[in-house]
Amino acid sequence: MNQSRTNKFHVLKTDSEPMAQWRINLNDIIFGAESRLGKAFDIILIIAILLSVLAVILESIVSLDTPFGRSLYIIEWIFTLAFTIEYGLRLACVRHPFKYIFSFYGLIDLLSIIPTYLSLFIPGANSLLVIRIFRILRVFRILKLFNYIREAETLAEAMVTGRRKIIVFLYFICTLVVVFGCFMYLIEGSDNGFTSIPRSIYWAIVTMTTVGYGDLTPTTAFGQMIASMMMIIGYAVIAVPTGIYTAELSKAIVRKRDVRGCIGCGKNGHEVESDYCRFCGEKLPE
Amino acid sequence: MNQSRTNKFHVLKTDSEPMAQWRINLNDIIFGAESRLGKAFDIILIIAILLSVLAVILESIVSLDTPFGRSLYIIEWIFTLAFTIEYGLRLACVRHPFKYIFSFYGLIDLLSIIPTYLSLFIPGANSLLVIRIFRILRVFRILKLFNYIREAETLAEAMVTGRRKIIVFLYFICTLVVVFGCFMYLIEGSDNGFTSIPRSIYWAIVTMTTVGYGDLTPTTAFGQMIASMMMIIGYAVIAVPTGIYTAELSKAIVRKRDVRGCIGCGKNGHEVESDYCRFCGEKLPE
Amino acid sequence: MNQSRTNKFHVLKTDSEPMAQWRINLNDIIFGAESRLGKAFDIILIIAILLSVLAVILESIVSLDTPFGRSLYIIEWIFTLAFTIEYGLRLACVRHPFKYIFSFYGLIDLLSIIPTYLSLFIPGANSLLVIRIFRILRVFRILKLFNYIREAETLAEAMVTGRRKIIVFLYFICTLVVVFGCFMYLIEGSDNGFTSIPRSIYWAIVTMTTVGYGDLTPTTAFGQMIASMMMIIGYAVIAVPTGIYTAELSKAIVRKRDVRGCIGCGKNGHEVESDYCRFCGEKLPE
Amino acid sequence: MNQSRTNKFHVLKTDSEPMAQWRINLNDIIFGAESRLGKAFDIILIIAILLSVLAVILESIVSLDTPFGRSLYIIEWIFTLAFTIEYGLRLACVRHPFKYIFSFYGLIDLLSIIPTYLSLFIPGANSLLVIRIFRILRVFRILKLFNYIREAETLAEAMVTGRRKIIVFLYFICTLVVVFGCFMYLIEGSDNGFTSIPRSIYWAIVTMTTVGYGDLTPTTAFGQMIASMMMIIGYAVIAVPTGIYTAELSKAIVRKRDVRGCIGCGKNGHEVESDYCRFCGEKLPE
Repeated sequence: MNQSRTNKFHVLKTDSEPMAQWRINLNDIIFGAESRLGKAFDIILIIAILLSVLAVILESIVSLDTPFGRSLYIIEWIFTLAFTIEYGLRLACVRHPFKYIFSFYGLIDLLSIIPTYLSLFIPGANSLLVIRIFRILRVFRILKLFNYIREAETLAEAMVTGRRKIIVFLYFICTLVVVFGCFMYLIEGSDNGFTSIPRSIYWAIVTMTTVGYGDLTPTTAFGQMIASMMMIIGYAVIAVPTGIYTAELSKAIVRKRDVRGCIGCGKNGHEVESDYCRFCGEKLPE
Repeated sequence: MNQSRTNKFHVLKTDSEPMAQWRINLNDIIFGAESRLGKAFDIILIIAILLSVLAVILESIVSLDTPFGRSLYIIEWIFTLAFTIEYGLRLACVRHPFKYIFSFYGLIDLLSIIPTYLSLFIPGANSLLVIRIFRILRVFRILKLFNYIREAETLAEAMVTGRRKIIVFLYFICTLVVVFGCFMYLIEGSDNGFTSIPRSIYWAIVTMTTVGYGDLTPTTAFGQMIASMMMIIGYAVIAVPTGIYTAELSKAIVRKRDVRGCIGCGKNGHEVESDYCRFCGEKLPE
Repeated sequence: MNQSRTNKFHVLKTDSEPMAQWRINLNDIIFGAESRLGKAFDIILIIAILLSVLAVILESIVSLDTPFGRSLYIIEWIFTLAFTIEYGLRLACVRHPFKYIFSFYGLIDLLSIIPTYLSLFIPGANSLLVIRIFRILRVFRILKLFNYIREAETLAEAMVTGRRKIIVFLYFICTLVVVFGCFMYLIEGSDNGFTSIPRSIYWAIVTMTTVGYGDLTPTTAFGQMIASMMMIIGYAVIAVPTGIYTAELSKAIVRKRDVRGCIGCGKNGHEVESDYCRFCGEKLPE
Repeated sequence: MNQSRTNKFHVLKTDSEPMAQWRINLNDIIFGAESRLGKAFDIILIIAILLSVLAVILESIVSLDTPFGRSLYIIEWIFTLAFTIEYGLRLACVRHPFKYIFSFYGLIDLLSIIPTYLSLFIPGANSLLVIRIFRILRVFRILKLFNYIREAETLAEAMVTGRRKIIVFLYFICTLVVVFGCFMYLIEGSDNGFTSIPRSIYWAIVTMTTVGYGDLTPTTAFGQMIASMMMIIGYAVIAVPTGIYTAELSKAIVRKRDVRGCIGCGKNGHEVESDYCRFCGEKLPE
């Protein structure tokens, strides 16, 4: 296997710029996933993340006064300290620390330890620790779930190529809920719970998206008529994002399929699952 | 850049019919978006609209008795007077004032100032001022968001070509909710909250569109059976508008894509995002 | 214009079997829509139907004790008597009365008059009169809304060709709600409102279809977990009927488009909206 | 008709391994559906299953103290004993009993009788008997509903080929509800009903999937803002599974259609409903 970079902060021995040996080794363990130690580190990290998230969730159920609650509190601090040390080591062994700090994962890593320290001043802030769950996105890299990454990319690509249509749609929906919200504020009024325009807009969103909590409902006949109209619009308009996404995804899937060309006959357009060319039987590239 | 008309009320110097110079200049500022003054005017207008809408929304939260409430009231009047003057200037510098008054934007502009004057007689009418939000549709023209306009057109085109199917669907849904509403009125009766047929139809719409407020629910066993049937119908029938729209949108996207032809080889059918012909590499027209 | 049969109960003068002249004339007015009298009759009928449905709906709001309520009651009887006479005339002038009685429209016509007579014995039965609304389906024939009929046929065709898939889907959903309903009955029990299995199944349908009234909600932690699972299933599974219908509708639209062949060059596959052949410019048949 | 195996536990006379004649005959009745006795057995079984499920459902409504309740209790035991005997006979006449026990239907058969015995120790356990409903899946085999099986296979195939995309989507949704749930726990707090993180996650699922019970609703302005955001995300994101499934189903339908090749001209790609080749008119294979 030739040496490959697992992610952009992974330093390879073949890289031109020199770096102290211990930093290269540490970098290999923390950022790499090829070596045995690197893999072990990643798996331990995932387990630690999941356990720490579980601890945060459990902590919200049990009282801090109980012995179990106190243990959870201590566990949370242990995890936070461990993650703080890990964050320090990441800073130490990366070539450009500032680039890492402001990268997506760098920010997530930082946000994953701050809330515990914050909870010393603001009670309850530690429930923000669930941000740690985003760190698990790395799992795809470690477990070599490349197929899943590719599928996720296809899904994201359809979102990107259709972004303008989706923005137009969201703009349309937002205008609609603001206008309908104001109408209902006028029609129903404070006596029926529509105490302010923002609250009425909140109601309009609840209705338009077919969520329908029922904490705020129209009571006048005219209000119910307007609400009925909104519901039918909301019910039919769901077709728009679905139509956009379906059309874009179909295109993205076809485009993805076109990428691999056969070595034997040069033809492409193979199914993603195919291993051999359907025209000449040649083995297809991975 | 050759002089182009930004919208149909924009008067160009090259137009044959003569008009006083000050009117042409004013028209250029108000209706045009090419000159520096015209652009500045448009941007100031958008900010004013957004601020005035915000003021209306805030006014519904705070009491008029508070100093902050009184300030908002004064701000609203300032904006309304400014918009009234603007409306007058628009009338003054347009070639055919009546055409403008009865155009889409003309009506929106008028409806954006009336509610404040109306609120002198009818308290609360000023919440209708949010209609102002529609004036921002002009933003697309000013910020040269042509791509968004084109996407919006594609979305609208799919709606237009599928209009007959959508009307048939809405007719079907309306018939269904009327009939089911009457059945439930008969089955549940006034004792369970289904006090009249319109109210039962309202319930049927709430149920069919899967909103489900819960302000009115079937309590008899038979009523719950009918309601269950309705829900499953509503759940499955959402497939119809989605199917219609997806099919029409796919056609519209393909049709849109066909428009640009390559100058080099004459072939068309290029992706909207492409800059160069995929057959001969020639630069594609914008 | 050559004489064409408007519907299967319309008797034409050119028909071989002899029939009394007055019956032919009456049939032409009632079942036909080509002659001036026939058209007038149909339009009056539609207005009468709409008014009578409106009367039924209004009657459910106002009390019978008020003068307005009493008038509505009288109006309902007048409409019912008129429709009864119309039904008699239809029977009199049709060639095969029994075929008419058991046809779709024949049954609707009968069901549209019975409830008023029934309401003498069963109070409230007259709200069933809304069945009259189905009589308006004839409007499509009268107003020559053939394009709408064709679109409705396309929509129905997609439903028919996909019927087996839809049945499989509904079977799947029904099994799911029965099984989940029973689980919840076991988990939540009578104390939390899940008093019987049918009631729990009703809850499962309300949840699965994302209606969510909230009249019955899980309160135990385990019940909420099961409910969460159901919601995510219901949320994702809506994709199935939508996928089925979209795929079938796309096929149906293509198939519809293939029907018209050009007289000039013989090619088909034209858009429904096209008037001229896109290959040779020949006028396309209607 | 040549002798065909109805399912994998069906023993044929032509099978090489010898087995006692009575076991072969019994197997033919229980597992086969070709002989008259086999068919009769299957139909009786289906009726028995439906009646027993109905009995379980009714039992949950009526009190055990009533005579009707007691009869239902006895009926349930009769059905359970009958199904136990049937299970024993199945074990007796199958070639490899262990394979049968751990097969899908074997497990369902066992789970269909255990709850009654269990209910002697755990009251209410007998509502698990509805698992019996899964036994009816065999109905497709017996009634030769092969077309339905094929359609179900198409639907399942689309699910399988799109499984990775669906898993990525579900992972995305789960992360979203966990993170939003924690935010709301922080924002709304215990005073507004968000007493713990799991409960807040439950609320996030109820909101995201547009179910919206309303048993737990945001009351603070900021909480309503976050909730509004979630609803719009949930409303738009439903497009993703729908898009995935529609795209995959379209591919699966096309692939299914390709299977049958014409004997006359060798061409394939015929519609599923076609009986004759559309190219040469030859009768198509079933």
